[in-house]
Amino acid sequence: MGIVLGSNQYGKAENRVVRIYRDEPRHEIRDLNVSTALRGDFGVAHTEGDQSVVLPTDTQKQTVYAFAKTHGEGSVEEYGLALARHFVDNAEPVGGARIEIEQYDWDRVVVDGVEHNHAWVRRGPEVRTVAVTVEGVGNDRREWVIGGVKDLVVLKSSGSEFRGFLTDKFTVLEPTADRVMATSLVAQWRFAGTTVEWDAVYPSIRQIVVETFATHHSLALQQTLYEIGKRILAKHDEVVEVRMSAPNKHHFEYDLGRFGISNANEVFHADDRPYGLIQATVGRDDAPDAGSAWVPQRGWLV
Amino acid sequence: MGIVLGSNQYGKAENRVVRIYRDEPRHEIRDLNVSTALRGDFGVAHTEGDQSVVLPTDTQKQTVYAFAKTHGEGSVEEYGLALARHFVDNAEPVGGARIEIEQYDWDRVVVDGVEHNHAWVRRGPEVRTVAVTVEGVGNDRREWVIGGVKDLVVLKSSGSEFRGFLTDKFTVLEPTADRVMATSLVAQWRFAGTTVEWDAVYPSIRQIVVETFATHHSLALQQTLYEIGKRILAKHDEVVEVRMSAPNKHHFEYDLGRFGISNANEVFHADDRPYGLIQATVGRDDAPDAGSAWVPQRGWLV
Amino acid sequence: MGIVLGSNQYGKAENRVVRIYRDEPRHEIRDLNVSTALRGDFGVAHTEGDQSVVLPTDTQKQTVYAFAKTHGEGSVEEYGLALARHFVDNAEPVGGARIEIEQYDWDRVVVDGVEHNHAWVRRGPEVRTVAVTVEGVGNDRREWVIGGVKDLVVLKSSGSEFRGFLTDKFTVLEPTADRVMATSLVAQWRFAGTTVEWDAVYPSIRQIVVETFATHHSLALQQTLYEIGKRILAKHDEVVEVRMSAPNKHHFEYDLGRFGISNANEVFHADDRPYGLIQATVGRDDAPDAGSAWVPQRGWLV
Amino acid sequence: MGIVLGSNQYGKAENRVVRIYRDEPRHEIRDLNVSTALRGDFGVAHTEGDQSVVLPTDTQKQTVYAFAKTHGEGSVEEYGLALARHFVDNAEPVGGARIEIEQYDWDRVVVDGVEHNHAWVRRGPEVRTVAVTVEGVGNDRREWVIGGVKDLVVLKSSGSEFRGFLTDKFTVLEPTADRVMATSLVAQWRFAGTTVEWDAVYPSIRQIVVETFATHHSLALQQTLYEIGKRILAKHDEVVEVRMSAPNKHHFEYDLGRFGISNANEVFHADDRPYGLIQATVGRDDAPDAGSAWVPQRGWLV
Repeated sequence: MGIVLGSNQYGKAENRVVRIYRDEPRHEIRDLNVSTALRGDFGVAHTEGDQSVVLPTDTQKQTVYAFAKTHGEGSVEEYGLALARHFVDNAEPVGGARIEIEQYDWDRVVVDGVEHNHAWVRRGPEVRTVAVTVEGVGNDRREWVIGGVKDLVVLKSSGSEFRGFLTDKFTVLEPTADRVMATSLVAQWRFAGTTVEWDAVYPSIRQIVVETFATHHSLALQQTLYEIGKRILAKHDEVVEVRMSAPNKHHFEYDLGRFGISNANEVFHADDRPYGLIQATVGRDDAPDAGSAWVPQRGWLV
Repeated sequence: MGIVLGSNQYGKAENRVVRIYRDEPRHEIRDLNVSTALRGDFGVAHTEGDQSVVLPTDTQKQTVYAFAKTHGEGSVEEYGLALARHFVDNAEPVGGARIEIEQYDWDRVVVDGVEHNHAWVRRGPEVRTVAVTVEGVGNDRREWVIGGVKDLVVLKSSGSEFRGFLTDKFTVLEPTADRVMATSLVAQWRFAGTTVEWDAVYPSIRQIVVETFATHHSLALQQTLYEIGKRILAKHDEVVEVRMSAPNKHHFEYDLGRFGISNANEVFHADDRPYGLIQATVGRDDAPDAGSAWVPQRGWLV
Repeated sequence: MGIVLGSNQYGKAENRVVRIYRDEPRHEIRDLNVSTALRGDFGVAHTEGDQSVVLPTDTQKQTVYAFAKTHGEGSVEEYGLALARHFVDNAEPVGGARIEIEQYDWDRVVVDGVEHNHAWVRRGPEVRTVAVTVEGVGNDRREWVIGGVKDLVVLKSSGSEFRGFLTDKFTVLEPTADRVMATSLVAQWRFAGTTVEWDAVYPSIRQIVVETFATHHSLALQQTLYEIGKRILAKHDEVVEVRMSAPNKHHFEYDLGRFGISNANEVFHADDRPYGLIQATVGRDDAPDAGSAWVPQRGWLV
Repeated sequence: MGIVLGSNQYGKAENRVVRIYRDEPRHEIRDLNVSTALRGDFGVAHTEGDQSVVLPTDTQKQTVYAFAKTHGEGSVEEYGLALARHFVDNAEPVGGARIEIEQYDWDRVVVDGVEHNHAWVRRGPEVRTVAVTVEGVGNDRREWVIGGVKDLVVLKSSGSEFRGFLTDKFTVLEPTADRVMATSLVAQWRFAGTTVEWDAVYPSIRQIVVETFATHHSLALQQTLYEIGKRILAKHDEVVEVRMSAPNKHHFEYDLGRFGISNANEVFHADDRPYGLIQATVGRDDAPDAGSAWVPQRGWLV
């Protein structure tokens, strides 16, 4: 019996990089939260404290900011791929790199109907996400890209049921044929490859998400998630798998009848906790192996 | 020498009321966080534990939800005034009531270019705020309404300087004629009266805020705030005073020169803490007395 | 009618200063969050963008860190006073300075019953607070110190009632003679002067707070707060006024009767929102004028 | 090519259960955040909206609160096991259940040197965690328990180095032989079985963690984590694997030299972001299969 080092990684999390593109009078902005993690043969760092195999997290940070200039002209997915490839190709003990990026969107200020050249208002709360994983060099190179959105808060005030469910002795919930359904969606979609029109795919998938949520008559949040996944896969050949995590943000019809006031799905209490939490994967049955695509950095342990 | 009870208030904070208007196929939504505080002759509750003068915070909560139905047809300012007047007029020990409301905005989901009837996406992070104070009954009645916005995150990548400042032995900051300026603005404006086109004034003032931020060449955040206040007062006769609190969300130009990479205000680190904090009031010299208008509930002690 | 600049201040908020005292093998640690605000004749900075009267917030930050070394040997109150006096005495346009400090406490790691010399575990969530205000120079000098504690979370599972309260048509709450009472207390106490055994007074007052909460049979949270204030003032002549803000963190007895399970104040749901919010001041009737003591920086607008 | 439902689960997250044990005058308190997730044959709920296989998350919530009374006498691990077994054994489509629990600790208020019977102060920020997974029935039953701690914030002001690391063209970090090392540790340990002295093991492991952090001379955070894991495994036969995630909470020595002030590791800036993030697993080479032990609910997608 011996004690062994198992899976491990290290990196620099939450580099808050803001890139302004100012070659033209009409500036562009890219506002990012970039996290890096390296994986590989770092055993001696753990067992003996030998740092000769460790590229410091500070160096990773410098690289993140430097690449924002040197590799920041394309999409954020390309920037992430460039970073990951750089670490794998240039630091010998590094066998794999994981780059997780959050992109915060900004709307231009509009003055007299015209978009301003260099002033913005933060749009939110939704956040675009990217997770890039690169492993191996030369012929052993494998790459995965996961796109996503999080904190996408949606609500529908009709078109949602929940009834016919399994019951037991602890079941007191009343079935309903019309309720408020709301969630703060986290969705991530795995791409088949790395040749993708990244900046076209994201708004398309986001639109499928909100449109499906709105128009699909829902018998349960599970069904809505499945429908979202199905429609994404139907429209986007480049996507092979969709994962979603959806808190059911409960809106309880408030009991006003005791005050002689009618309340027909009009006044609700939006409760904080507990919340339902519905999580599902929808994928193609011939999807390529996910490999390390879903091995996270920040959700590695929570 | 004796010990005396000083200023005090009590209420129910953060009632998360969601109101759906569903009389027409095109539903409307109002998503609120409502806090109530009562002020008055509650001395015996403190000194002797005698609750006969205390209208429970639970009762305040019930009233908040009930009034969402019975007094929820107009603007959120009118709803707040109705609540405050109710407490002052109906609970005898209550001399004053403070109602603080946050309103979260939602955008309709758009499907094939058409706005959906009953599905929304949460817009943010900015929040519309209202603070209503009502005191006294009959001829002694006094009322104040403060409108506002918070978490309004704006950024400009040019048109901002900071130089010519006072220096001392601890000054190491370099002056700059071009920088990124960003803030998460809290602004509150006091109205002269309670007869106001509430739902028209809010978007107008919000537009003045973002437009001034964008177009006014700034020599310092102080100057920008003053200009915002001045323009609001110039356009809106019904407003007599504007208060603003603006964290200077520092964006530091990243030093890439040491890597042989040029960086002319292109790559920044968005720092979290510390941050500058600029706070100012702009008002009319003939503004009526503010009375209790600015005595808060949730910021009473922090 | 004209537009005028009203009250204003500016500074550097949330400087996260950690001071290690390492002259002896047994190190000491002081972990602070320091915010500074300057008040004075800054009109031209607002109206004309003239920064010649503005000592940059960056300079304030440098001073905060420098003084941690040069003025950091005594209590945190003395450090705050030194900073405030420095700003008022050395920058001519500065008429007043406000220093707000949060102190995070750490416990030493204990190994084989012995406290370690240089390793600690963070204690919390409670935080010690200090707010120092200094105005004027020479004979016009006025100084105020407010001590405090926040995020002090306490709970008692008995010894608390709430009944005999005022009712109206929206009252549905049942009176109770035994409940769980819990709060996350914010308390601040104003000192009469600046010659105080700061590091002795804080633990004494903190103990009065928790001891009173525990042992005083409570007819309402208001009564508990008043009793806490009274006891602080009775024991500490150097304190002239106590302010408290106490969210009533509701613990609702869970309805298990419908499952045939008894629940006599044993199983509770700890609810998040809404919460009661009880706020009160207890002071001496001969307390000296509070002046600017209670004018905050971070709670100036929320 | 077809579209298929992949891994999925659903449950009720963050039930805030507080249990008071009051049979004796000296009450006991257990303050929990309980999350449940069910796994199994829920396909038709997703694909057809058929809820006949779905035990509502509301029912899961009721069970959580009911079991706090009926199964709450032992340790929190036993409570979690009871809940998980109940769901698997009683709802036919349920093939597996995951229960994640956070336990918040409270210290008794001490009055005149005596612990109070029914009043407490919240200790923190650290939180004890439990994750229970149960799968299958009868002979197919498999069970895993993971204990843990999170938000355990520790700091050492000496006894930590970082030097001899790998460098590249983006490396500007200076090596150091003495620094402040601080982290907010998340650690989770997998047990070999379910017959464990739960309430004895937790404080023992927690003590190993803080003691190792304090006394082990660290050449890097990686080495410290490995040492912690090794010592836990050496002392606790019932543990087979330890996972840790440790943000390197950077404390940067502040540059006071430019002001003519010496600073020999005395004044630091505690930075928020970015932070290093070191994650590692230490286990036995003969550990039994982890199965579903590490498949989370709340970290399933972030």
